[in-house]
Amino acid sequence: MDEKQSSKTRGKPIKCRAAVVRQPGEPLVIEEIMVAPPMDREVRVRIICTSPSRTDISFWEMKDEPAIFPRILGHEAMGIVESVGEGVDEVTEGDSVIPFFLSDCGECVDCRSKKSNLCSNLPFKLSPYMPRHETSRFTDLKGEVLYHFLSVSSFSEYTVVDIAHVTKIDPSIPPNRACLLSCEVSTGVGAAWRTANVETGSTVAIFGLGSIGLAVAEGARLCGATKIIGVDLNPDKFEVGKKFGVTEFVNAGDCGNKTVSQVIKETTGGGADYCFECVGLASLVQEAYASCRKGWGKTIVLGADKPGSTLSLSSFDVLHSGKSLKGCLFGGIKAKTDIPILIKRYLDKELQLDEFVTHEVKFDDINKAFDLLIQGESLRCVIWMDK
Amino acid sequence: MDEKQSSKTRGKPIKCRAAVVRQPGEPLVIEEIMVAPPMDREVRVRIICTSPSRTDISFWEMKDEPAIFPRILGHEAMGIVESVGEGVDEVTEGDSVIPFFLSDCGECVDCRSKKSNLCSNLPFKLSPYMPRHETSRFTDLKGEVLYHFLSVSSFSEYTVVDIAHVTKIDPSIPPNRACLLSCEVSTGVGAAWRTANVETGSTVAIFGLGSIGLAVAEGARLCGATKIIGVDLNPDKFEVGKKFGVTEFVNAGDCGNKTVSQVIKETTGGGADYCFECVGLASLVQEAYASCRKGWGKTIVLGADKPGSTLSLSSFDVLHSGKSLKGCLFGGIKAKTDIPILIKRYLDKELQLDEFVTHEVKFDDINKAFDLLIQGESLRCVIWMDK
Ligand SMILES: [Zn+2]
Ligand SMILES: [Zn+2]
Ligand SMILES: [Zn+2]
Ligand SMILES: [Zn+2]
Repeated sequence: MDEKQSSKTRGKPIKCRAAVVRQPGEPLVIEEIMVAPPMDREVRVRIICTSPSRTDISFWEMKDEPAIFPRILGHEAMGIVESVGEGVDEVTEGDSVIPFFLSDCGECVDCRSKKSNLCSNLPFKLSPYMPRHETSRFTDLKGEVLYHFLSVSSFSEYTVVDIAHVTKIDPSIPPNRACLLSCEVSTGVGAAWRTANVETGSTVAIFGLGSIGLAVAEGARLCGATKIIGVDLNPDKFEVGKKFGVTEFVNAGDCGNKTVSQVIKETTGGGADYCFECVGLASLVQEAYASCRKGWGKTIVLGADKPGSTLSLSSFDVLHSGKSLKGCLFGGIKAKTDIPILIKRYLDKELQLDEFVTHEVKFDDINKAFDLLIQGESLRCVIWMDK
Repeated sequence: MDEKQSSKTRGKPIKCRAAVVRQPGEPLVIEEIMVAPPMDREVRVRIICTSPSRTDISFWEMKDEPAIFPRILGHEAMGIVESVGEGVDEVTEGDSVIPFFLSDCGECVDCRSKKSNLCSNLPFKLSPYMPRHETSRFTDLKGEVLYHFLSVSSFSEYTVVDIAHVTKIDPSIPPNRACLLSCEVSTGVGAAWRTANVETGSTVAIFGLGSIGLAVAEGARLCGATKIIGVDLNPDKFEVGKKFGVTEFVNAGDCGNKTVSQVIKETTGGGADYCFECVGLASLVQEAYASCRKGWGKTIVLGADKPGSTLSLSSFDVLHSGKSLKGCLFGGIKAKTDIPILIKRYLDKELQLDEFVTHEVKFDDINKAFDLLIQGESLRCVIWMDK
């Protein structure tokens, strides 16, 4: 998107292609849609790369609320600013940007505090609309409204995001690497780096070696953890985990007559300093808590269990163990501060991103990208919008 | 205890008076007992002041395990070293000391770490014996073994404690103030100071304004908290709470159609920065957790619920709130480091201790001290052993 092209589209609706989900679970259909110009404090972005994740899959399959159709999914992406609405001065036409699902407004008490990443002005909710104006920027060619997803909706050649949901980035990072920092990798790395604040020389146990769990390993490795234990039901995960610093593996389905926490306590001499639950099972949070070192162990919850589920801990253990438990969204990162830092660390060859990308497809093959994820064959599958 | 007197008793059994519990719930009887000399790494202490607490009452009333009889209760005290066993060089005859229930051996990985106060060499357990040699130093005049309590057993003119359970103190602090730092006041102050690390200008909510809860308030006040909310079923607690920095009161039994957490969220603009559960009810931990500020709120658990009780939190809340939960024994203080600091802060007129002492009795009136506590009339009732 050069300046000349922007000047043609600025202020006008753009007709472009998007993958619209019209019925739950049905193959995505790429159709032409209209993307309205950005309103006040909004930014219209041409998506370059995007990658589907579990959250997209689950809102694609989901039949009941909070699912809603027709909708444009996708929330992990990199793009170029096409035009900006009133009151936007953080980014300008032609800037490379990453959109993200968790607002960083920069103005509320949370966004101004170093201790919170949970914006109060535009708090996280599963709204089908733009977060600030609570309307949609998408219509199909019949004029029917198409719903937004997680304030991003990146399965479209163009999307509109709020200025609180986008950060300018160094354009020298390749788009198919940048898009990874939009959600899962930042979540995992952030959980180790920002939420747990993993110390050099410490021991870490990671429950679930999907891409978030592997990103936790990568974050722990960057923080200097010396023992990084991966826990998974699939023993093949150890090989891939090694690329991200996993030093030991516990097969959760094959611990003999021991529990996972017993095995971890033995191999760490009393428990891991930090345990991360990345699957989204309350029972696994309990096992992670049990696997932590007394006195100072921290259990970090990253995985979302189904609505209404309850996490139970023994009152005695909580009191007598001195352990702590903490949950985090987006790994606790403050997007506009921390994503640029992670990009710099990638460009400085510290943070590994290349290894997450197992597949790349063109936009027309978005259903293949979904299939690869559902089959567990891809770690991250990058979709190139213009190929 | 002067050097001359020590030289008469050193190495020999001492006959002295102790309050022995022979049957659960029956009035304590002061009788003559024999206290053996300290073994290797043990210290024999002449108790000057002691004060009963809820834990003593509950092990006095308790009929089944882990209760055991005949036993010498008491675990909050100040005394003078009468003699020391082999291998003791930290304290010597005539030193003023405070014994405490949670080992600080100074040698294990936990005791050497700043992050833990849960000694691995002599871990906390409800043993009826000395922690290192696992035998008793007490017998009655018929030669029957009397059991120890929490490694202290201070309801005796003389007791024997392990060197890991005693710290030398500045003798200029009066005995009836020093003894308070042996358990409850250190627990409460420590929870605010060491475990929560309360920041200047922050908001605090304390669930349960017994002496531990009031000590939390005192600790939060010392740390510079500007809003300290006391929560209790007894509205009279507000007046006493004010002495320790409580600035607002929530009557948990009279919140109209609101929950306690709703009231706290309103008065703090979203929730307290730190919440402390000092009662020992899993349901109240949930209310404390709900009362914490999203993004950075910390809930600290100090109260012990009954064995087998379960603490339940919503998985959704844990993930989406960014709050943390942490339990602590002895407020997270490292006794040999932190008790001397607290004594200095008392002598410097920063830490308030005088206000905790509502009653003082002589040893013969120990049953009165129990009654005052059971009736809720005393905050701390100090027993003078030689009066
Ligand atoms: Zn904000
Ligand atoms: Zn995501
Ligand atoms: Zn120790
Ligand atoms: Zn106590």
